[in-house]
Amino acid sequence: MPELAITYSPIGVIRTPYTDKAPYQPVQQSSGKMEDFKLILEPSFSAGLKDLASFRYIYLLYHAHRVKKQPVMTVRPPWTHGLEVGLFASRSPVRPNPIGLSVVRIRNIDGPVVYTSGLDVFDGTPLLDIKPYIRELDTKEDANYGWLESMADREHLALHIKGIPHSHSPLG
Amino acid sequence: MPELAITYSPIGVIRTPYTDKAPYQPVQQSSGKMEDFKLILEPSFSAGLKDLASFRYIYLLYHAHRVKKQPVMTVRPPWTHGLEVGLFASRSPVRPNPIGLSVVRIRNIDGPVVYTSGLDVFDGTPLLDIKPYIRELDTKEDANYGWLESMADREHLALHIKGIPHSHSPLG
Repeated sequence: MPELAITYSPIGVIRTPYTDKAPYQPVQQSSGKMEDFKLILEPSFSAGLKDLASFRYIYLLYHAHRVKKQPVMTVRPPWTHGLEVGLFASRSPVRPNPIGLSVVRIRNIDGPVVYTSGLDVFDGTPLLDIKPYIRELDTKEDANYGWLESMADREHLALHIKGIPHSHSPLG
Repeated sequence: MPELAITYSPIGVIRTPYTDKAPYQPVQQSSGKMEDFKLILEPSFSAGLKDLASFRYIYLLYHAHRVKKQPVMTVRPPWTHGLEVGLFASRSPVRPNPIGLSVVRIRNIDGPVVYTSGLDVFDGTPLLDIKPYIRELDTKEDANYGWLESMADREHLALHIKGIPHSHSPLG
């Protein structure tokens, strides 16, 4: 088993409106101010953004720096009525290596600044990498919902997963 | 700009047949021996695999430990006839933080061992994280091909991207 320590340095920072608490899952951001969500790269990496705007979607990898809890191997995701699942079957940020992964849309690129659709990270989150989301590689049209499939209210849960605002019934 | 050093430790190791050279992009692995591609987790993380098999696809995040070159901000991806694109618009492993990202299928899980479809990493690659690929979050049906779109032989290039074996005409 590898024991080595792997050290990374941020390539920039993610700016969001979430200075205090972040929504648990990405906010739908087709509306909203352009300024709300942006990546600010170290100037020396600006040239690496060439051609990135040709992609509709990109992956962001980031360090979930506000996570202080120790990971546990089973978790109860929000809105699942207490269902317990394995940590690696969840998107909980409390992981052995708290690397966050989000798919976002590019809205604009201006020098070292990439304006994106919404994502559920704290303001000041260290950005580790940007990769193009390539249809041929990354769009799995036969992907499923995993354990979410078994939940009676999967469609409701999906609204939470996608961060789409909606109203709850008094029992919801 | 954040200056901090971020340190991770592998949660396990990726075993592949590629001890010397890896194919540039994932190998289609609907055939092939089950033993060929597997993740071996540290025993203490085994319990975190609960429910993972309910997902058809998973993300793997790993440290591209064999990369020795220094990253440059523009690259010429293979099979693109010399086209130069920004590093962050490419999937080159030579990046400021050499974190690899692959989407693979689960074939079986047995204790701390996850058997997967093929991926283009060297044997012994340190595994950083496993996340479920959730249709609702990750399948972007309107994703595009970015700069690949402009290439006359995009469909041929796509075969390379997907790692599907095919024959070349005498002209390449």
